[in-house]
Amino acid sequence: MRTAEMMDAHPAQITLDRDLLARTIDALVACSQACTACADACLSEEMVAELRTCIRTNLDCADICDATARMLSRQTGHDANLIRAQLQACAQACQSCGDECARHAQAHDHCRICAEACRACEEACNELLATIS
Amino acid sequence: MRTAEMMDAHPAQITLDRDLLARTIDALVACSQACTACADACLSEEMVAELRTCIRTNLDCADICDATARMLSRQTGHDANLIRAQLQACAQACQSCGDECARHAQAHDHCRICAEACRACEEACNELLATIS
Amino acid sequence: MRTAEMMDAHPAQITLDRDLLARTIDALVACSQACTACADACLSEEMVAELRTCIRTNLDCADICDATARMLSRQTGHDANLIRAQLQACAQACQSCGDECARHAQAHDHCRICAEACRACEEACNELLATIS
Amino acid sequence: MRTAEMMDAHPAQITLDRDLLARTIDALVACSQACTACADACLSEEMVAELRTCIRTNLDCADICDATARMLSRQTGHDANLIRAQLQACAQACQSCGDECARHAQAHDHCRICAEACRACEEACNELLATIS
Repeated sequence: MRTAEMMDAHPAQITLDRDLLARTIDALVACSQACTACADACLSEEMVAELRTCIRTNLDCADICDATARMLSRQTGHDANLIRAQLQACAQACQSCGDECARHAQAHDHCRICAEACRACEEACNELLATIS
Repeated sequence: MRTAEMMDAHPAQITLDRDLLARTIDALVACSQACTACADACLSEEMVAELRTCIRTNLDCADICDATARMLSRQTGHDANLIRAQLQACAQACQSCGDECARHAQAHDHCRICAEACRACEEACNELLATIS
Repeated sequence: MRTAEMMDAHPAQITLDRDLLARTIDALVACSQACTACADACLSEEMVAELRTCIRTNLDCADICDATARMLSRQTGHDANLIRAQLQACAQACQSCGDECARHAQAHDHCRICAEACRACEEACNELLATIS
Repeated sequence: MRTAEMMDAHPAQITLDRDLLARTIDALVACSQACTACADACLSEEMVAELRTCIRTNLDCADICDATARMLSRQTGHDANLIRAQLQACAQACQSCGDECARHAQAHDHCRICAEACRACEEACNELLATIS
């Protein structure tokens, strides 16, 4: 990931902390990939019927993290209301998905790893949220 | 779009109103396409430098509408907190983008049409939000 | 969908047929929504274990159709090699997904409707491909 | 990114090389982020009017890389024809975008970094393509 480099090379005045922004984008992108992979790994498990909620929650979380990462990658203009609302939704998605994956963490390594990615992403979103006035 | 048909064919018990869900998904998908097309049409305008905020807002709105349409297309399990938060963020994105496009509606037909798509989508999101307890 | 209206309002010179472009984008967007909904409906079926390939193919097709619809919605500049390659990949995704859904069409209405959306989208992509020199 | 860990934790038999898959996904995700950020950085440049093609190509490349990364993150079932076609389209997108960004590399650091991300991604796609029979 060249996120921090790209953030430093941006010509706009950036209101938010560039390092924190870059770290949050990286956490979002990593969480999205983990969720897409976890949904598919769950789908391949013998006990797929018991992993329905996990798969669905993974798919939602991947889509919402992707949209949030793209929004944060843009620094032309600044809409604090939108950033706040989308970060709140994303933190909620990561919390729901982290909780669900944690339920299957002992049975499935992919759920354990994905839960970690969700927790890290939820924290990053909340840390960034705290800096938006 | 076969959204209503697909919603009727879903085997799950669906808590929310199926017609309203299908109409909201259609509005989201139409808004996302209009925003993607408007961003690109703005990019082709001679006065592109004055349309920077419009392009940026269009891109955000397209990404957020897509993620929201996908979330609403899923009815396996039901996470009212997540649906509420994401619909709120999406209504905010549509409001910001509709406001920005409306500023250029007289000069550019694509901004006028896109503003209409944003307004329709914002209303649909808010109507659905009102039914989520 | 305001796709045709948006295409008409675009300021760029457009090499391809605007009506055909708009119809193809509509088919792509409809196919993507049907695939996202079909993946989730399959996930809710009792026989989910037999629908693994269908779910996976649906998810791929949705992602590829979305990317293709976005690319076609942009008319600033024109990269015939890229459009051709992406349309070929998308027609392949729609064919694979249409074939897989057709296998379950008698058992599941959502698979029957989704197969129709995939066939319509595959045809639209191939029709547009035939016009690209 | 936990891509390699997630790939190792997948329960399916995976035909392709897991390390190469994980590296390709990482390159795709990094390229998509760089392209989204580069499009926005170009939009903020004073000379935005001269960067139109760059912005448009960046947006296409980001969408196509995202769809390809998601497809490769799924290993339930294996559709060699689809993987091949989508990887070819993606390599084409990365080549077009890398070429375009390279033209502005001396003037804009974000274009230089983005061109590197595109080259790395194009190579990874081609390396993976060579292993698909």
